[in-house]
Parts: sequence; C-alpha cells; structure tokens
Amino acid sequence: MNLILLERSEAGATGEITLTGRRATHLLRVLRVEPGQTVRVGILDGPRGVGTVTSVAQEAVQLRCSFDAHAAHPPRVDLLLALPRPKVMRRLWAQIAALGVGQIILTNAERVERNYFDTHVLAPACYRPLLVEGLQQARDTSLPHVSIHRQFRLLIEDELDALFPRGLRLVADPAATTPAGSLAPKDGGRVLLAIGPEGGWNAFETALLAAHGFQSVGMGPRTLRTDTACIALLAILHAAL
Amino acid sequence: MNLILLERSEAGATGEITLTGRRATHLLRVLRVEPGQTVRVGILDGPRGVGTVTSVAQEAVQLRCSFDAHAAHPPRVDLLLALPRPKVMRRLWAQIAALGVGQIILTNAERVERNYFDTHVLAPACYRPLLVEGLQQARDTSLPHVSIHRQFRLLIEDELDALFPRGLRLVADPAATTPAGSLAPKDGGRVLLAIGPEGGWNAFETALLAAHGFQSVGMGPRTLRTDTACIALLAILHAAL
Repeated sequence: MNLILLERSEAGATGEITLTGRRATHLLRVLRVEPGQTVRVGILDGPRGVGTVTSVAQEAVQLRCSFDAHAAHPPRVDLLLALPRPKVMRRLWAQIAALGVGQIILTNAERVERNYFDTHVLAPACYRPLLVEGLQQARDTSLPHVSIHRQFRLLIEDELDALFPRGLRLVADPAATTPAGSLAPKDGGRVLLAIGPEGGWNAFETALLAAHGFQSVGMGPRTLRTDTACIALLAILHAAL
Repeated sequence: MNLILLERSEAGATGEITLTGRRATHLLRVLRVEPGQTVRVGILDGPRGVGTVTSVAQEAVQLRCSFDAHAAHPPRVDLLLALPRPKVMRRLWAQIAALGVGQIILTNAERVERNYFDTHVLAPACYRPLLVEGLQQARDTSLPHVSIHRQFRLLIEDELDALFPRGLRLVADPAATTPAGSLAPKDGGRVLLAIGPEGGWNAFETALLAAHGFQSVGMGPRTLRTDTACIALLAILHAAL
C-alpha cells in the first residue's frame, strides 16, 4: 500500500478522516505511523495529497488531509480482454489496475467458456477492492471503468465506438511481426489493446476486429498465456507512450 | 502446450518415441491428433523439430521426430530475483520461462523472509516441471539455469562474475528515471536484470549492486508488486532487444 485511497464521501470538506479496518492496520502495523508523520493519500477518481497523522489509537488512525488542486489524468491505455477463467481473472484485477488502464472491457468469444460469466469474480463487490488494491500499490487514484459484454459481435459493431470513440486500436496476435510498442501514439492519444482467449480469437472474430480498425501487433516468436501477455503488453505500451 | 518437449534421453537415436501421461493426454484430448498429423516437438536444451504421429492408442501416442540441425540460442536476458514468497514464486516459474531467460539467480536480501528458502517451491522436483510448462507454452527448448543463494553479499562479491561474466547489469528501481528498455544492448550482448524484494533493497544492498556495475532503470511513476514488475520488465527488455 504505497498510497492510502479514500472514497470521495470519506474525505469530506474539512479533510479530517478517521481510518479503521485494513488501511488503519497497514498504517499501524506496517508503516508504524505516529502523530505528526505524513502519508501519501488520494481520493478515488480524484486528486492525490498528503495526510498528516493527528492521532493513533488501537485500531484507528486519524488523518488531516490536503489534496492537490487537480486529479491526475487516467492512464492512456484501455484493455479489451476476452474473459479468462475466473481464477486467472481474479489475479489480474489488481495487476491490471497497478499497470494502469482507463477501462477494462471484458468480452465473450468463441473460445471463452460460457460459465465464466456466472462467477462472483465479475461482481463489483469482488473486483472493486482488487482494483483499489492495485491502485494503492501503484499510487494511482483513477479507478478503471469496467464493462462486461456477453456478445462479442454486438460489442464490436454497436457498443465499442461509444466506449472508445477515438484512438489507436491494437489486437495482440502471436503471428504479427509489428512490435506492440512501435505503433504507440506520441501525441497523447489513447490506445485500446485487445487480448484474445487462450487458443486465440476465431476467424470471424479476427476479421470483425480488423474491420473495426484493430491493427495486429506481436511480441516476437514466444506465445504467452493470456495473463502473462496481458501484463507484458500493457507494460510495453506504457513504456512506449 | 504449443510445443511438446522431450528429454534428450527420450528422443533416442531413431527419433521414435512413445508418449504417455500429460503430453499424450494433451495430444489426444486437446489437439485430437490422428496418425499422419504433425506436431511441434523439441528436445530440452536442444533443437526443435517436427513429430509425425505414427499411431495413437487409449493413453499413448507414438511419434517419429526429426529435428533441426542446431538448437536455438538461449534468451539473452538473465534474471536476478530477491526470493518472493513461495506462493508468488510458484506462479512465476512458468511465466518467467515463457517470457524467456537464460538463468534465474534467486537471492536472499534483508527484506526476504528467511523461511522462504525452506519451501519445496525451490526444489527442482517442483520447479523443473513448471519451467518446462512455460517453455512448452512459448515454444522454446532452453531450460533456464537456476541457482539459489542464501547470502546476498557472497553472491554479488564472489559468485556473480562467474554466473554472469559479461554483459549489461540492470537493477529495477521505482525511483529511477532511465527507462528499462533504453539501455538494452543492440550488439547481441546479454542483460542481467535484478529485481528486489517487496519493500525494495536496503541501502547496503543498493550500494553493493551499484559497486558491481548495476545501473538503475525504472518503469515510470507506478510502483508494481514484485511479480508484476518481473513480468513487465522482462517483456520490456525483450521488446527492446
């Protein structure tokens, strides 16, 4: 926890806040804070700032916070991901948020098993804390927007232009020879990265993505598991931007 | 499993081999091979090749293999990693092998808990199959060399020059402003990437690494968990090489 994230409702007008639970435990047991010490804080989807510890108790920490005038911009990369199996998705939430994405668009595909969509891993009550954990790790405040789409064709044909109106669209393709980082826009524009299921997109899906402006990019001759590819390509894109 | 890896002792002189167990199950149930079909094969630390299915039975597949004249070069990146907790290390083996490293040098550090070294995750019987799994995913045959070092100072001062005699030494540092990919040698040389424990190297360790030629590289303002950083930086280095 490299940043203590607060809900907007918690921060209040005065900047005085009493933390209990996991965040208080972290401050007390790991950082071992004492009154007068400062810690990094941030408001979800808002600015970062500094919290001065005003008092500590057994299970609670009081902070007086002051915040930057402006929130940081959200990360310039968005992710379109064919839903991996629940165990993998569960692990990915925090890692994706830590690497930094503006939104996570989860989709069905032929090689995604239907029952993956019925898991609690797709419930906000499950994934929101994991996203927050990733942001606290990476010192970011921008909570990725999440949307879940059970119909790939509907998503690409009818919904995607609203979700990602402008910017570069890339699709990871083990056979592609264009390096993922080489197309990254230098002008501040956004990038949408699509990553398929284990086994890849089928021919129809590949063609539909191409028809909607997705360019194929690769990572060399090594084929990676979805979750590894996801982390690797987000890292490469961020490094290139 | 994008490549079926064989032990050198299995491949024999004639190239005839009968597979049973996991590899046979994969060929029969996932790839649904039939006689006459070809599959990608490789010999551990040897060449890749093609296997022609000569017969299938309930739980066994017979292949006739022919191999390339030469083995591929091992990946040009080596990894020096402060041992993460066993659960994380267990997950990393296959991912690191899939991304591609010549060797994995695991080390102690002040912020590594001593009992991490007593885990079965560091036994070859545990990690070798995981490395092979990663290689089969990535279609590589070069098994990373693994060494485990309980004394950081001894490793850096006395043992490292033998393990990594020449090449570029980098250490991941969240505070560094030099991008990890920018120093990657274009001349075919090797890179050793050092990644510290959660919480980072201490001052002594940082100084010792610097004194032994490690240059600090970063990934921007986001601090990542060890395992995410490991995958992200290996990907960025491979993309830059």
